[in-house]
Amino acid sequence: MLNAVDESFLAALASQLPPGTLRAPEPRHLEEPRGRYLGLAGGLVCPGNTEEVALVLRAAQAARVGVVPYGGGTGLVGGQVQPEGPAPLILSLERMNRLRELDAGGNVLVAEAGCILADLQAAAAAAGRLFPLSLASEGSARLGGLLGTNAGGTGVLRWGNMRDLCLGLEVVLADGRIWRGLKRLRKDNMGYDLRHLMIGSEGTLGVITAASLRLVPRPAQEGAALIVVPDPAAALALLARAQARLGEGVSAFELISGMGLHFLAQTMPQVRQPFAAPPDWMVLIDLGLAAGADPVQALEALFAEAAEAGLALDGVIAQSQAQRQDFWRLRESIPEANRHIGAISSHDISLPLGQVAEFIALAGPALARLGDFRINCFGHLGDGNLHYNVFPRPGETRADHEHARPAIKQLVHDLVHELGGSVAAEHGIGRLKVEDLERYGDPVGLDMMRAIKATLDPASILNPGAVLRPAG
Amino acid sequence: MLNAVDESFLAALASQLPPGTLRAPEPRHLEEPRGRYLGLAGGLVCPGNTEEVALVLRAAQAARVGVVPYGGGTGLVGGQVQPEGPAPLILSLERMNRLRELDAGGNVLVAEAGCILADLQAAAAAAGRLFPLSLASEGSARLGGLLGTNAGGTGVLRWGNMRDLCLGLEVVLADGRIWRGLKRLRKDNMGYDLRHLMIGSEGTLGVITAASLRLVPRPAQEGAALIVVPDPAAALALLARAQARLGEGVSAFELISGMGLHFLAQTMPQVRQPFAAPPDWMVLIDLGLAAGADPVQALEALFAEAAEAGLALDGVIAQSQAQRQDFWRLRESIPEANRHIGAISSHDISLPLGQVAEFIALAGPALARLGDFRINCFGHLGDGNLHYNVFPRPGETRADHEHARPAIKQLVHDLVHELGGSVAAEHGIGRLKVEDLERYGDPVGLDMMRAIKATLDPASILNPGAVLRPAG
Repeated sequence: MLNAVDESFLAALASQLPPGTLRAPEPRHLEEPRGRYLGLAGGLVCPGNTEEVALVLRAAQAARVGVVPYGGGTGLVGGQVQPEGPAPLILSLERMNRLRELDAGGNVLVAEAGCILADLQAAAAAAGRLFPLSLASEGSARLGGLLGTNAGGTGVLRWGNMRDLCLGLEVVLADGRIWRGLKRLRKDNMGYDLRHLMIGSEGTLGVITAASLRLVPRPAQEGAALIVVPDPAAALALLARAQARLGEGVSAFELISGMGLHFLAQTMPQVRQPFAAPPDWMVLIDLGLAAGADPVQALEALFAEAAEAGLALDGVIAQSQAQRQDFWRLRESIPEANRHIGAISSHDISLPLGQVAEFIALAGPALARLGDFRINCFGHLGDGNLHYNVFPRPGETRADHEHARPAIKQLVHDLVHELGGSVAAEHGIGRLKVEDLERYGDPVGLDMMRAIKATLDPASILNPGAVLRPAG
Repeated sequence: MLNAVDESFLAALASQLPPGTLRAPEPRHLEEPRGRYLGLAGGLVCPGNTEEVALVLRAAQAARVGVVPYGGGTGLVGGQVQPEGPAPLILSLERMNRLRELDAGGNVLVAEAGCILADLQAAAAAAGRLFPLSLASEGSARLGGLLGTNAGGTGVLRWGNMRDLCLGLEVVLADGRIWRGLKRLRKDNMGYDLRHLMIGSEGTLGVITAASLRLVPRPAQEGAALIVVPDPAAALALLARAQARLGEGVSAFELISGMGLHFLAQTMPQVRQPFAAPPDWMVLIDLGLAAGADPVQALEALFAEAAEAGLALDGVIAQSQAQRQDFWRLRESIPEANRHIGAISSHDISLPLGQVAEFIALAGPALARLGDFRINCFGHLGDGNLHYNVFPRPGETRADHEHARPAIKQLVHDLVHELGGSVAAEHGIGRLKVEDLERYGDPVGLDMMRAIKATLDPASILNPGAVLRPAG
């Protein structure tokens, strides 16, 4: 059983750290974007370097005090806030935001966990390279949290998840030992892959303090189109044709629903809509091609082929980078419009590509039997990753349907599971989905996870209650 | 301490398995390609399905009998043979060679661990897809071993290692429980990543029985060139220019040395050599482009640019697929020529791209101070992965220099380590590099590996002596 942080613990810690390292928690350290949890804090520590993180963890393990690692606070599953139990120490990496090295020739960047994603993208761009992780919260999400949750976003189709972009890690273990694994290699088979074990473990197996990241060449020619499709199956057929034509040149392939456009028109009228009447389904396709290629021509040819095959009903091709940015602004505004409307239940799910259309066809009618809802289904179609969010009818609020939430969630998740999908595609388990992991995870796999947790964090001080239910 | 397999263990096992499942080991089960180890076998079991593998492991754990998982037997670090200790049971997956499913639309293939790589490649090709793992032993290497060692090869530059091509696993644990993790998803954050922990663990944490694999679209237009470069640094500069022009269209980028061509001319004169006088350094560059692109034109333009920059001295561009196959035959014959000559010491190393040229420049003169050797340095330059092999002078044999082997190895490995590289890039640790892992691995990382091994295989029955020295 853990102890709450108390004055004597804080005083002892303060005596070993530079002045200002221990701070008063601010509201942002205790809130999370969806407002489902309010965190507890016995104290906040903001170490300035890896050795200070090690010192903090040694002290916490000795005192049996829980430690909640904190990055940018943008996580959507409550992994960054502990709402119950003995008050933990919040360990924010915000001061460890140094870009340790950028080697453009070697396509590697080494950065500390507190770096903000947009700053890393900018540093790569300034060196003529691309750091291809891209997601709506990139202006505040920090590297440690992105690694802890194995973040996804819009570039996964071409460049992979956060784990695919990480070459090495520096991690402080629960007992304060430092694993120095900041390799920069494309091939390295020196024993078990501890890097992938830490990535996605959401701060429950160790505290990531730095990482070496893969950079890629910047595509020379970029372009984008919004294409109206008859249905999600047609969208996937369009993706297959795009990839057959352009290979990895297809950088992103995002699904947008009519409901999403309707929510946008209602709550964010300043966002320019491309079509006079919002179509039921459209896709945003983004290209990054080699020098000499013409993205507009490529998209025109793709559109012509798709139209002839009945896969494209209408479309608009960006004629400038400004227009391409407009398309992306529209796509990235959808989560904000959703927040204005207020979802009853949000689902971050993935499916095998062959089952995506079937899921969408089955889920709507099944939910209609539970009640009269509005559904905004959108997301990273090329990865089989949908954000399937259920909203009240106009005039009602999410509070009116709070009682229906468990049944909605179970219906959606059961169907996803039945079709071979995942109910935690890119946001992680956090505290929101601990029961889902127990329900849908393979039991032997779960036992292995518990055994690994007990081995690497025997006192269970790291992010108590996240990912796995506390033992005992 | 483990027990040797004995008659009563085999009799009890035979009584629970279908006739023919227990067999007499053949020489191939006890030999390995480099002839450094001769394996022990108390028996050989060839299960026909996952449940039989589970039964075997339950019996082995109960009897404290070591189990050596065996795939195609092509491993180069002795991971598949146990040369000392109590005689183990060889567990060959060769009968589990069923292609369970191929979903071309979803770009997924599900196969059992005993499938041979070339058969998987052929099945993917028949469905209009590419399974992009490619290596010299693909005609006999089996899926389980490829996963166990996180195999690499020539396609890593574009498509990644074996781990990057695996979406899910089915694994039997040491106690016979079956982890059913055959997911087919591109995004899945359901707890700790057990898949990556198993991949590369060389049969020491569990026995992989099946995997779901990622397929990719077949490049529409393929081409290749052999380009003579002044030195390895120029080769890397050429790669950067090729990727700037063609992005992911550069499928492979292999370094070939003059010594390699000389060995080929001497031992395999039937392999056609492209240049009258073997150049000191050349690269094989392979392209896979989208429909409509012309690889010959692209290579001509690249060559012209490189020649003007002094990065290319001569070159030949394949004018047909037959000629392209010839280029690859030359590349793939180099390891065989090496075997004919007989290396004193072979090194499978990787370096940060920025340190590759420095390593090559430093290693040769340093070795010359140890003795008069010939060096064949070749391999997957685009990944920073070199096969750096040291040979005797003409008229001498490897036996003449056996005494020098430890010093040669240490010199090469120390230099690699100093430059931030890995001494086990793509072949794994096996039994050959257990001491190297101890010497060069991070001590905290090693402790984590040992803790994980003790947790998942507490009786240490799985592949005893591979990767980690047995505890106690």
